[in-house]
Amino acid sequence: MADLAHARAAFQGRSVVSADDFSKDDIIALLDAARQYDRFQDDGPTWAGIEPSLQGRVLGVLFFEPSTRTRLSFESAMLRLGGSVLGFADANISSFSKGETLVDTIRVVEGYCDAVVLRHPREGAARLAAEVASVPILNGGDGSNQHPTQTFLDLYTIRQAAGTLDGLKVGFMGDLRYGRTVHSLATALLHFDVNLKFIGPENLSLPPDLRDHLVAQDRLDAEVESLADAGDLDVLYVTRIQQERFPDPMDYQRVRNAYRVDRESLAPFGPDLKVLHPLPRVNEVATEVDDLPGALYFQQSRNGVTVRMALLDLILGAQGGGESA
Amino acid sequence: MADLAHARAAFQGRSVVSADDFSKDDIIALLDAARQYDRFQDDGPTWAGIEPSLQGRVLGVLFFEPSTRTRLSFESAMLRLGGSVLGFADANISSFSKGETLVDTIRVVEGYCDAVVLRHPREGAARLAAEVASVPILNGGDGSNQHPTQTFLDLYTIRQAAGTLDGLKVGFMGDLRYGRTVHSLATALLHFDVNLKFIGPENLSLPPDLRDHLVAQDRLDAEVESLADAGDLDVLYVTRIQQERFPDPMDYQRVRNAYRVDRESLAPFGPDLKVLHPLPRVNEVATEVDDLPGALYFQQSRNGVTVRMALLDLILGAQGGGESA
Amino acid sequence: MADLAHARAAFQGRSVVSADDFSKDDIIALLDAARQYDRFQDDGPTWAGIEPSLQGRVLGVLFFEPSTRTRLSFESAMLRLGGSVLGFADANISSFSKGETLVDTIRVVEGYCDAVVLRHPREGAARLAAEVASVPILNGGDGSNQHPTQTFLDLYTIRQAAGTLDGLKVGFMGDLRYGRTVHSLATALLHFDVNLKFIGPENLSLPPDLRDHLVAQDRLDAEVESLADAGDLDVLYVTRIQQERFPDPMDYQRVRNAYRVDRESLAPFGPDLKVLHPLPRVNEVATEVDDLPGALYFQQSRNGVTVRMALLDLILGAQGGGESA
Repeated sequence: MADLAHARAAFQGRSVVSADDFSKDDIIALLDAARQYDRFQDDGPTWAGIEPSLQGRVLGVLFFEPSTRTRLSFESAMLRLGGSVLGFADANISSFSKGETLVDTIRVVEGYCDAVVLRHPREGAARLAAEVASVPILNGGDGSNQHPTQTFLDLYTIRQAAGTLDGLKVGFMGDLRYGRTVHSLATALLHFDVNLKFIGPENLSLPPDLRDHLVAQDRLDAEVESLADAGDLDVLYVTRIQQERFPDPMDYQRVRNAYRVDRESLAPFGPDLKVLHPLPRVNEVATEVDDLPGALYFQQSRNGVTVRMALLDLILGAQGGGESA
Repeated sequence: MADLAHARAAFQGRSVVSADDFSKDDIIALLDAARQYDRFQDDGPTWAGIEPSLQGRVLGVLFFEPSTRTRLSFESAMLRLGGSVLGFADANISSFSKGETLVDTIRVVEGYCDAVVLRHPREGAARLAAEVASVPILNGGDGSNQHPTQTFLDLYTIRQAAGTLDGLKVGFMGDLRYGRTVHSLATALLHFDVNLKFIGPENLSLPPDLRDHLVAQDRLDAEVESLADAGDLDVLYVTRIQQERFPDPMDYQRVRNAYRVDRESLAPFGPDLKVLHPLPRVNEVATEVDDLPGALYFQQSRNGVTVRMALLDLILGAQGGGESA
Repeated sequence: MADLAHARAAFQGRSVVSADDFSKDDIIALLDAARQYDRFQDDGPTWAGIEPSLQGRVLGVLFFEPSTRTRLSFESAMLRLGGSVLGFADANISSFSKGETLVDTIRVVEGYCDAVVLRHPREGAARLAAEVASVPILNGGDGSNQHPTQTFLDLYTIRQAAGTLDGLKVGFMGDLRYGRTVHSLATALLHFDVNLKFIGPENLSLPPDLRDHLVAQDRLDAEVESLADAGDLDVLYVTRIQQERFPDPMDYQRVRNAYRVDRESLAPFGPDLKVLHPLPRVNEVATEVDDLPGALYFQQSRNGVTVRMALLDLILGAQGGGESA
């Protein structure tokens, strides 16, 4: 079990481009550090004992494509810590794009703030930004590539609910081919003693290289087309299947209904099954599921603030912060 | 006369969906509490003795349609109290709308902030949000339905200028049919000893149910088509008539000029007449009126910050706040 | 050399519409005052000894056309000083424009904040706003007219790098006809003992009235079409030539390549040449120039925050601030 000093050493002043850049110990140290921010949720709006550890610090949020949840979750984390935020929510309301390279944009923006959350439609944009920036870059999603803070909050949520990340059977359902969160979380879970199962339509099955990687590590426990065939599960991670993936609307309708969970389809897994979803959902999780004790997706969303508070505090916080741990 | 303890009991932790949800005592307590924030206006930019009572608190502003005045007025109030703001100014720059229900959106956003100002084009949206949210929802306008903080600041402005809300003759001029502010303020004024008069074109006259309600309470003092026929007035509340209401542009031009006030048309009411307008105005109040002592509309706009400061402080402030009163 | 008391007297509570409104002493006092904010850059993200001198103050940013660099630079300056920001980034996401006059908008917004940065496509908008506003108006660019804080930061950058503003040979290259920054900086430099040179295509040469003014003051040292003909230079201020100026795309391509600097074209001026650019650049400064010691444009961008911090602090800061100087 890592401690806060480890967490600070691992994250202070660093960019976060991909979850793959961090070791198992780094990740555990982050998840441990995040626990202290849970009370923001528990105590809710009446809680006021805030340590404004990032007062005077400024977070830049550069969203070259909109992602309101990711943006507001980062902003909430920064504001809760006493910091401030500037930036833009969409490239359409920015004049940055007009012929300027991303490298130039980053070299300008690093003069405005102490760290940058970058959301960009192009794969590799965050890596490029991190290479040229003098301030930490936090990847808020770069195309279909990486979204590391989503992976951290997913891990945090599973661990919070199950008490551990070891010994679990974790199923992924929905779009296994293009689902960035699926690939990233599955890869991160390989740090732990887990069995992974995949449930989805054939045309949206795992990318070959990820499948090969899982097979090579002997972690691909099942790859099936129906939830009923998945066997035991401790965690079910549901993702949305997007209509754009289907040339024929009829195919989409069929698949859409086949990969929708409700109380009936979840009943065989028992009351302890944890259901996660990165949100927004459309109809792939019936609202009747919301009241089940294992329906964690709104908690998961709230954990996004918790984990991002920890991350921002570790990255930007004063060096002395580790001493009191 | 209610006191601050009453105000806190009435508003702390509560949603504000409609002015109708609050009693006469609640409203008076709010207006009383708001007085202490007047000094922000009087002392202007050189004033610095701010009590940051909402430091560390975060207000979410979810504007599914733009309303820059309402948004900035709430934001100013929150920032003046030491709090922070996050959100979006228009549904077009939010990715929330993509197939997600309002209920899901609220359950996500309540994890980011301590209260939410919601502006939504659909009637009833604020009520629905308040029912599912674990944080207070402040209705910033839901379709043609309610805009309670506008009503509170209108009442505050009349009371500030007239010294009382009792014994007044209040005229409403312009769009009486669709004017949300007219309906809401007229209804709230029924708590007080007022006479109400309505001046407008026939096709934009009072909705039947509101007329019936006013008649039943014996408060409908006049319903006329010309300001010259309105008789005595202490207050004149002018609203804009929108071109969309008139299929024939010629009809609109005629009405537009008939319901425009200038120094000449206001002269018969004497120098004590108070003129209000929710803004923006186009041409329905001549700019020559601005210099009259009774031209209160810009003061009314500033009072929007005053009253929203009081409201946010009461709703989100610490429980101990009432003790020092 | 002016002191901080002079700076405060010159700027406190004042609007900043045009650099021409300020005397040489005023400008020097501002540049001197700005020096203390340099450490924000030097110490970077780990620096935390911030004096939140504008805590509780609110800056309104009204951008009726987008200008992300100007907006974020002002916002960063305000936030670094402990203040807060509200406003909008583009007229398209504001409901202010709908038929309301700028005068009305300003009279509403002055109730929300302690100062306003106004960006507006119309020449003279900032002057008009400053005339009616009860709070200081900072011109963030009004059409092709003025952008005074850009001029201040340009002066600051030249002085910081050269150690002085006197005795310099300053060349301007690119769009001399329409380049607002060129006109404003050249005019401001007339306060100092400088020689001015202009390099650009014939169809984008100096406006006649500015040329006459420079000639009358005996400061127009050279007006040439090629950088190679400019003679000695201490400073080269490069601006972008916009395609819209050329009806024939072939003409544009030819000019675009002729007014592009790279290591080869800059070599004759020696290693001490300072290269500035208001950014964004497209291709008019080759990226191979970025590593030259005299490539100041990113430093110039960072100086935008430095100078705007000084300006906001002088304009909005407490009166007592000057005493400790």
